[in-house]
Amino acid sequence: MTQQIRVGLFGTGRIGQVHAMSLATLEEATLAWVCDPFIEGAKRTAAEFGGRVSDDPEEVFASGEVDAVIVASPTATHVDLIEQSIDAGIPVLCEKPIDLEIGRVDALRAKAAATDVPIALGFNKRFDRHFVELRRRVGAGEIGALEQLIVTSRDPGEPPAAYLPQSGGIFRDMTIHDLDMARYFIPDIVEVSARGANVFSEGIRQAGDFDSTVVTLRGSKDELVTIFNSRHSAYGYDQRIEAFGSTGLLQVTNKNDSLVRHWGARSVEGAGPYQNFFLERYAEAYRLEVAEFLRAVRGLPSRSPGFEDGRAALILADAAEKSARTGAAIAVELSA
Amino acid sequence: MTQQIRVGLFGTGRIGQVHAMSLATLEEATLAWVCDPFIEGAKRTAAEFGGRVSDDPEEVFASGEVDAVIVASPTATHVDLIEQSIDAGIPVLCEKPIDLEIGRVDALRAKAAATDVPIALGFNKRFDRHFVELRRRVGAGEIGALEQLIVTSRDPGEPPAAYLPQSGGIFRDMTIHDLDMARYFIPDIVEVSARGANVFSEGIRQAGDFDSTVVTLRGSKDELVTIFNSRHSAYGYDQRIEAFGSTGLLQVTNKNDSLVRHWGARSVEGAGPYQNFFLERYAEAYRLEVAEFLRAVRGLPSRSPGFEDGRAALILADAAEKSARTGAAIAVELSA
Amino acid sequence: MTQQIRVGLFGTGRIGQVHAMSLATLEEATLAWVCDPFIEGAKRTAAEFGGRVSDDPEEVFASGEVDAVIVASPTATHVDLIEQSIDAGIPVLCEKPIDLEIGRVDALRAKAAATDVPIALGFNKRFDRHFVELRRRVGAGEIGALEQLIVTSRDPGEPPAAYLPQSGGIFRDMTIHDLDMARYFIPDIVEVSARGANVFSEGIRQAGDFDSTVVTLRGSKDELVTIFNSRHSAYGYDQRIEAFGSTGLLQVTNKNDSLVRHWGARSVEGAGPYQNFFLERYAEAYRLEVAEFLRAVRGLPSRSPGFEDGRAALILADAAEKSARTGAAIAVELSA
Amino acid sequence: MTQQIRVGLFGTGRIGQVHAMSLATLEEATLAWVCDPFIEGAKRTAAEFGGRVSDDPEEVFASGEVDAVIVASPTATHVDLIEQSIDAGIPVLCEKPIDLEIGRVDALRAKAAATDVPIALGFNKRFDRHFVELRRRVGAGEIGALEQLIVTSRDPGEPPAAYLPQSGGIFRDMTIHDLDMARYFIPDIVEVSARGANVFSEGIRQAGDFDSTVVTLRGSKDELVTIFNSRHSAYGYDQRIEAFGSTGLLQVTNKNDSLVRHWGARSVEGAGPYQNFFLERYAEAYRLEVAEFLRAVRGLPSRSPGFEDGRAALILADAAEKSARTGAAIAVELSA
Repeated sequence: MTQQIRVGLFGTGRIGQVHAMSLATLEEATLAWVCDPFIEGAKRTAAEFGGRVSDDPEEVFASGEVDAVIVASPTATHVDLIEQSIDAGIPVLCEKPIDLEIGRVDALRAKAAATDVPIALGFNKRFDRHFVELRRRVGAGEIGALEQLIVTSRDPGEPPAAYLPQSGGIFRDMTIHDLDMARYFIPDIVEVSARGANVFSEGIRQAGDFDSTVVTLRGSKDELVTIFNSRHSAYGYDQRIEAFGSTGLLQVTNKNDSLVRHWGARSVEGAGPYQNFFLERYAEAYRLEVAEFLRAVRGLPSRSPGFEDGRAALILADAAEKSARTGAAIAVELSA
Repeated sequence: MTQQIRVGLFGTGRIGQVHAMSLATLEEATLAWVCDPFIEGAKRTAAEFGGRVSDDPEEVFASGEVDAVIVASPTATHVDLIEQSIDAGIPVLCEKPIDLEIGRVDALRAKAAATDVPIALGFNKRFDRHFVELRRRVGAGEIGALEQLIVTSRDPGEPPAAYLPQSGGIFRDMTIHDLDMARYFIPDIVEVSARGANVFSEGIRQAGDFDSTVVTLRGSKDELVTIFNSRHSAYGYDQRIEAFGSTGLLQVTNKNDSLVRHWGARSVEGAGPYQNFFLERYAEAYRLEVAEFLRAVRGLPSRSPGFEDGRAALILADAAEKSARTGAAIAVELSA
Repeated sequence: MTQQIRVGLFGTGRIGQVHAMSLATLEEATLAWVCDPFIEGAKRTAAEFGGRVSDDPEEVFASGEVDAVIVASPTATHVDLIEQSIDAGIPVLCEKPIDLEIGRVDALRAKAAATDVPIALGFNKRFDRHFVELRRRVGAGEIGALEQLIVTSRDPGEPPAAYLPQSGGIFRDMTIHDLDMARYFIPDIVEVSARGANVFSEGIRQAGDFDSTVVTLRGSKDELVTIFNSRHSAYGYDQRIEAFGSTGLLQVTNKNDSLVRHWGARSVEGAGPYQNFFLERYAEAYRLEVAEFLRAVRGLPSRSPGFEDGRAALILADAAEKSARTGAAIAVELSA
Repeated sequence: MTQQIRVGLFGTGRIGQVHAMSLATLEEATLAWVCDPFIEGAKRTAAEFGGRVSDDPEEVFASGEVDAVIVASPTATHVDLIEQSIDAGIPVLCEKPIDLEIGRVDALRAKAAATDVPIALGFNKRFDRHFVELRRRVGAGEIGALEQLIVTSRDPGEPPAAYLPQSGGIFRDMTIHDLDMARYFIPDIVEVSARGANVFSEGIRQAGDFDSTVVTLRGSKDELVTIFNSRHSAYGYDQRIEAFGSTGLLQVTNKNDSLVRHWGARSVEGAGPYQNFFLERYAEAYRLEVAEFLRAVRGLPSRSPGFEDGRAALILADAAEKSARTGAAIAVELSA
């Protein structure tokens, strides 16, 4: 490659760091600008991974020195930064969700549909090679017609109390990843049912949110998808998918970094604990997510999820919230 | 024991045969009467397992030769036979469901509550020793507080078309076992949500029934229980339970009769197929179910599920049916 | 069947009890005589399982009331009892080993070869249905040509100190079962190498025996068989076989009675402990062993191992002992 | 770090490429010289990974531009290159074996012992983190005293026919890795027994070598170690270790890159095939091996195996060869 893609990064929190690190391992790109209103964060990141620093997105877009941007700033800034990217003709990879308000997303929808500027959404699980393999094998007909899909996703521990109010609630914050996974297998979801519960966290209860949820989706071919979420898991990050089809079953099991198993007087065949959390479990997926986005930047075919995928996941999350609150199944029409 | 319990058996279909066989292996009981309006069936069973034959339940009750009865006849006969048993003062083990109409069950409820005559319901899964072990370990606090329970139950193949109209639908016919299993762990269920789908069987669709369902229950402590059902399973009878608690997870996996595993060029660590169906998977449980009932007959403490358990399972099945039809979560009050 | 086979049982120790229990579950046979010089043992067994009692084998043979005998008495009595059975024309199932002295076995060999009286040897592992399945699948060519066979056999705990001097040593007492298993897959063994060690038991060391051994056999087609033995195992009875072939691998894994698995903070996917010992692990095999012998008694084709198998196992055990003591590989010719 | 370690690489075959790639990922080192009498190979490697090229080791040592060397050239050159490294005072990482002739190794031994120049041997398995974890846990007493160790190592397919004559035979070429693994757990081996077989490869037989072997070692505390080798494996690279101790068992199982498992009508729970061969299975280990060597170059404590480990492995391989040929167990004294 003759020239590296110059990337501007908005946001230097945990996920911003992950993207900066991915860029550092990808030869085809370089971190050109690091932007954060918390300028110390920007400086620290630039010190480690390179790039000029700014606390003002305008400066980055106006610099003429970025070929692509990655948006890892707080959710409330996403819509504006995507719009600015479109206006500047600069490809953008934006973290989920696009926004917590579907109205703001819809307001941008026509513009996003009309532009040629690549817009990618940060659904990292689509890049995990085990889930990719599962989808490929399901798509190849290995289990016949897909009838039931079960996604289990339990976080090791609940998020900091301070984060809860801005999280948008468990469905828009956590389930949204699994809702997108559902659509990775069954894009056309037509109905959402959800139940929420408060079984362990007083803090989450007081924030008006659920700590545990079960969501059931219906696909347009009457497939049923069920998503299990919990904000805690004593045995580590629990990330499984079970695809049940007319001629068989495929599962993605949890990942254990160690091949050592133990036999003792009280328990046999025990494995060591799982990887703790998403930064470990999806380290490779995060890198592939950025790499796939860079393909789009270079004008190559890319399988990155886009604006419509981000919008669909939010619609499903909203419907789940509504269903959990009212007890009614909610019909949705994602392509309307 | 000085004297064997003389048992009268109503119904000589598949499940009637199972009970006759169980009695044959239990020293403390003997098959005294076999009753079926299809008298040839009664004769065949008596020829193999002993007992006098009749096509008339009255004759059996009037004989003075039965100390207990087992009801394995068609569902429509259950209420009457239980009532006759109560009137005759003869302990009864009745197959599920008590009836397809909750009204008929409720009509018998006061009488069932008032009598001292043991009434046991045929929920065989409660006697499977793996589920018993799971419940014991959950009860012992091994995974802290139980937060989510997931019951997977998929039959190898759909029932005969002729059976469907009289089945009462998948919720009352198949899910009812898993609804009782839910109550085995969490007796006090307060809400039922269900979704049904038609993904593979034209016959089931034409019968107005679902071939695949997902039911989510809520316990009074906000526990969430999810039940997966399918009327077919390409890899054999699928019977699993996952209990997720605040400090860990316990699973009952599927049972494989063979300890042999295979490694080849295209697949490694593969096990042979599962046991085909419930008669194999629950053979021991059926026997223990009868043995536990016989304890009650002998006046010993017994953990057999009773009339109220049978009624509760039917109420949950009815609520699941209603929820699946209307899309609304249904509140239930089992002890009302 | 019109008439039950009347069985005489010699020896009422642990293994004698097992056989008595097997007979009790087999309709085609009845326990007719129980013989033990320790007459109290005979009486106790007869009280539980039926039969007349005696302390004198002659009385049993002379009674005219036995159609078959099972020899579960001390090893030193085996040769005489087999010979008496041949002389009396009464089929005999004899526990392994035939004797601890190959000379005494060879002295009986011609007579055993000449008679039509069925002589079966008690190698129970041949009747375990997992090993039977393994052999069937290997025989069917599922892994191509069998190249390496690995038998792991570790007892939960060492035998009583008092038993050691009469045991004949680990090779003749414990390994002999696995040597026969080797021959179940590869009958024609041509060479034996063995190493013994003393790593944990002072008592076994003082008895001049090994507590741990590794034996490697060579088949006539250059297959290599390795047997691992230990007189203790902290995680329970360890009974595995691995068959490595030119096109794949088949394993028989250990058996766990429970389907429950546990996930916790320090260990995941752990199963409960294994069955404790051979009476549990091989309960069904012991029953099938007797059933197969009864087929021979009835003149039906039977796959019970016979006198030559018993002799071959002893020759291999002797060779293993010699190899372990001298360090040299020992050539053997089993059919000479 | 202020300055990169300049590395000279001898040999640009398969394993030389692996080391060049490892160096490319390690910041602390740079490939300074690539040396191969087959100069085209040197040029190709240098073109990809950098460095000057030469076909003459003398030129490399004389250049004054190397701080360390890696020897991946044919076995016959190892002794000379190690000696030149010592003379030049340049740390050396040499592939196993040091030589095929123990006499040539012993001739260098005193010099190797006397020098301060780090000499590391390329036993890559010692750097696999699963084996490292196993050793750590065994060392921590998790299974009590180590009593039996079982190493299974089967290559996917036999080496090219042309390679066989120069391989030194299976024990010096393939088993040597596992012999070193044995010493990784039990350094003081006192006895070697081995059996070799020819079960599938006519080419290997004609080369006078074995295609399948079983080696049993004895440690100075009477531990028994058994190594299984085969030159082919239909299900991929088979790399397992089982450590049996007085209070439990630990296993390192095979590695499967995919978390997907399949359930079908004929087989359940099947995983995809294993990684094909050592370059994949030990990719990380090769990198860690070089990194550990670089620690020694920098004067830091390093756990790289050294000259004496290389010599010990060859002595054990020689003893295995002798034992396999003669049938006798061979006593060895590694520290003599």
